[in-house]
Amino acid sequence: MSTEVAAKRPKTVSIQPVERVDWKKRKAEIKEAQKKRKETKLIKQLEKQKELEAAEAAKSEQSQNKKGRDYTVSVALPGSVLDNAQSAELRTYLAGQIARACVVFCVDEIVVFDEQGEDVKSVEGEFTGVGKKGQACIQLARILQYLECPQYLRKWFFPKHQDLQYAGLLNPLDSPHHMRIDDESDYREGIVLDRPTKQGKGSLVNCGMRKDVRIDKQLQSGLRVTVQLNKSQNQESKLFKGVVVAPHVPRTEGGLYWGYSVRLASCLSAVFTESPYKEGYDLTIGTSERGSSLDQTTLSPFRHLLVVFGGLQGLEASVDSDQNLDVTDPGLLFDLYLNTCLGQGSRTIRTEEAILVTMAGLRPKITAAFTDVSNDTLKS
Amino acid sequence: MSTEVAAKRPKTVSIQPVERVDWKKRKAEIKEAQKKRKETKLIKQLEKQKELEAAEAAKSEQSQNKKGRDYTVSVALPGSVLDNAQSAELRTYLAGQIARACVVFCVDEIVVFDEQGEDVKSVEGEFTGVGKKGQACIQLARILQYLECPQYLRKWFFPKHQDLQYAGLLNPLDSPHHMRIDDESDYREGIVLDRPTKQGKGSLVNCGMRKDVRIDKQLQSGLRVTVQLNKSQNQESKLFKGVVVAPHVPRTEGGLYWGYSVRLASCLSAVFTESPYKEGYDLTIGTSERGSSLDQTTLSPFRHLLVVFGGLQGLEASVDSDQNLDVTDPGLLFDLYLNTCLGQGSRTIRTEEAILVTMAGLRPKITAAFTDVSNDTLKS
Ligand SMILES: C[S@@+](CC[C@H](N)C(=O)[O-])C[C@H]1O[C@@H](n2cnc3c(N)ncnc32)[C@H](O)[C@@H]1O
Ligand SMILES: C[S@@+](CC[C@H](N)C(=O)[O-])C[C@H]1O[C@@H](n2cnc3c(N)ncnc32)[C@H](O)[C@@H]1O
Repeated sequence: MSTEVAAKRPKTVSIQPVERVDWKKRKAEIKEAQKKRKETKLIKQLEKQKELEAAEAAKSEQSQNKKGRDYTVSVALPGSVLDNAQSAELRTYLAGQIARACVVFCVDEIVVFDEQGEDVKSVEGEFTGVGKKGQACIQLARILQYLECPQYLRKWFFPKHQDLQYAGLLNPLDSPHHMRIDDESDYREGIVLDRPTKQGKGSLVNCGMRKDVRIDKQLQSGLRVTVQLNKSQNQESKLFKGVVVAPHVPRTEGGLYWGYSVRLASCLSAVFTESPYKEGYDLTIGTSERGSSLDQTTLSPFRHLLVVFGGLQGLEASVDSDQNLDVTDPGLLFDLYLNTCLGQGSRTIRTEEAILVTMAGLRPKITAAFTDVSNDTLKS
Repeated sequence: MSTEVAAKRPKTVSIQPVERVDWKKRKAEIKEAQKKRKETKLIKQLEKQKELEAAEAAKSEQSQNKKGRDYTVSVALPGSVLDNAQSAELRTYLAGQIARACVVFCVDEIVVFDEQGEDVKSVEGEFTGVGKKGQACIQLARILQYLECPQYLRKWFFPKHQDLQYAGLLNPLDSPHHMRIDDESDYREGIVLDRPTKQGKGSLVNCGMRKDVRIDKQLQSGLRVTVQLNKSQNQESKLFKGVVVAPHVPRTEGGLYWGYSVRLASCLSAVFTESPYKEGYDLTIGTSERGSSLDQTTLSPFRHLLVVFGGLQGLEASVDSDQNLDVTDPGLLFDLYLNTCLGQGSRTIRTEEAILVTMAGLRPKITAAFTDVSNDTLKS
């Protein structure tokens, strides 16, 4: 019996009033009623059990063909690429091209490094740059962060700023975590609201939906949080319910691409040494037309991949200006140093183009690295 | 004995004057001298022979590992993509992105088709559009042609035009046929000059070099021609010498990427039916996120590959508006209908991005299609 049918049954069995007492009949009726009551009880029990079983099944199914992705992909490039644009509008547009290229290929972290040896400190969230020449790193990082932020949160996190003057020209990222008001999703990005919360109750979070979300914790207002919404919501309630999760959970458990984080590095070497991953990057790829051919390369599984691009003068320039690096050949810095576009028809590929070209070339190789060996054997 | 050593020998053997005639000695000396003369002659002969042999070897080597490319790659896209830009500047920039994407992947022909069913006639060279909305096809084609034309020829072929108002923002293609004044090359693009030519002598062509080129034919002035420059030039002459060749020769014989031609098509079906190649396209690929995975695809060798992209609404829209096409499923139009970016992190990939992503994915497959089977066997 399906849960649906069971649910349509009345909750109690009603006994019809009788006109003439016919004890034999009456007894039979009572017996029948008792039987029915018992049946109903059983059905209810069964129903509950089935519900529990279904929930269990769903849970184990989820963890079995768990679509979660454990590895991460980071891209690093010098902020100076912005100085290669011919107008303030195109400077902004270029930053947007980089953001989109990274999103198309599900990049989890973008590192903007300074190849001019300016003294840019690693800052998080609070940039003070003005977007002039020389402030390229900060402006690029800011535009990348702005674009990554779901539209409904931007008014809080991105006050008017000169760096964002032409943000209206930017193409949207259209990534899965950029949701419209009525989109349904297990996860949502939100901001903790500044509302008085009663003891024992969690904070309120605006997740860009028609109702705010009551989370499980009290958190400081103004924080950006990732919320996992409860499976079943009380439609009558004025609030949704959810729990705060780590930002990687939509990726590692839900298998969703959940945008990128942005990091500033004061030089090329800091890209490696200041990794947000405890273990650092375990596969690093440098890119150059002087690298070896991508075509003959296969990748082994990794936890944290880093792909590094150069600016107008290539990675040589980034290496040269980095006082922490003794080498002159950038190839020595990476596990792989790859030419990802053999036989290119232009003397030079621009960095924003190279990101799309390189990631398009790496994509099937990454997939292959995480595909069962058995599958590989089947293919060949 | 190496040619270098031989060359350092004096050309004649000088005989030392003798003080006292000692005939025995004298005879021996004469004999010795004759021997030496003979030797020298032999050496000279040997030298010449070696020179000839070397020249022969070089010639046959050239024709043996002739780097010529026989196949062509065409890309088609709707001009309407320009209408997706947010300003006149960005409209121009977008056209430039498309040109560069095609050049990076050595595309030989770009077909701009009308997916709005406007009555755009196939025009060559002479477009009358004004670059407003709706004139997108013509403007895109014009900018593509402008960019493809070597800088030194633009003043002749591209008078001021509204479509080219923001051409200053365009990134150069930096393709091999865009040469600087002193660059050396077997081939050059040029314009036939309007100069009186003597009977029996060929026309003069400006190829962007310090001297004009006297070609082998008399041609109408104003024509754009591909010139193969003679191997040896008389440095004292006021002119270079060369012969006019078909535009495909730098590709088919020199193995050089030599830019793209531009074609307008009034609808999607005309992309196929109006092919400039007698045999038509023998491998056609449509692109869509609803296509099958590129990763599992291998390509067979082809002569003329056509890769077709859709606009904002995808190829479905182009098929719908084409009155010559009965199908509604664009997949039926092509030999292959491919998703070239499995697992994309953005809900939608823009056409200008899709060109880079798709061609980057196809590049190694095209290479593989033209690689010896023996090589393939070695690899696996
Ligand atoms: C404008 S290019 C640098 C050109 C510079 N003149 C050089 O020789 O390296 C900018 C960046 O794009 C990437 N890139 C360009 N062509 C590439 C290729 N064929 N393969 C891999 N990466 C490439 C590299 O990261 C490079 O540093
Ligand atoms: C903006 S997209 C079209 C989106 C449209 N909504 C659709 O569903 O087709 C423009 C073009 O980019 C190309 N494109 C986008 N994503 C692609 C993918 N994953 N694989 C192959 N081509 C793609 C196709 O040629 C498509 O027509």
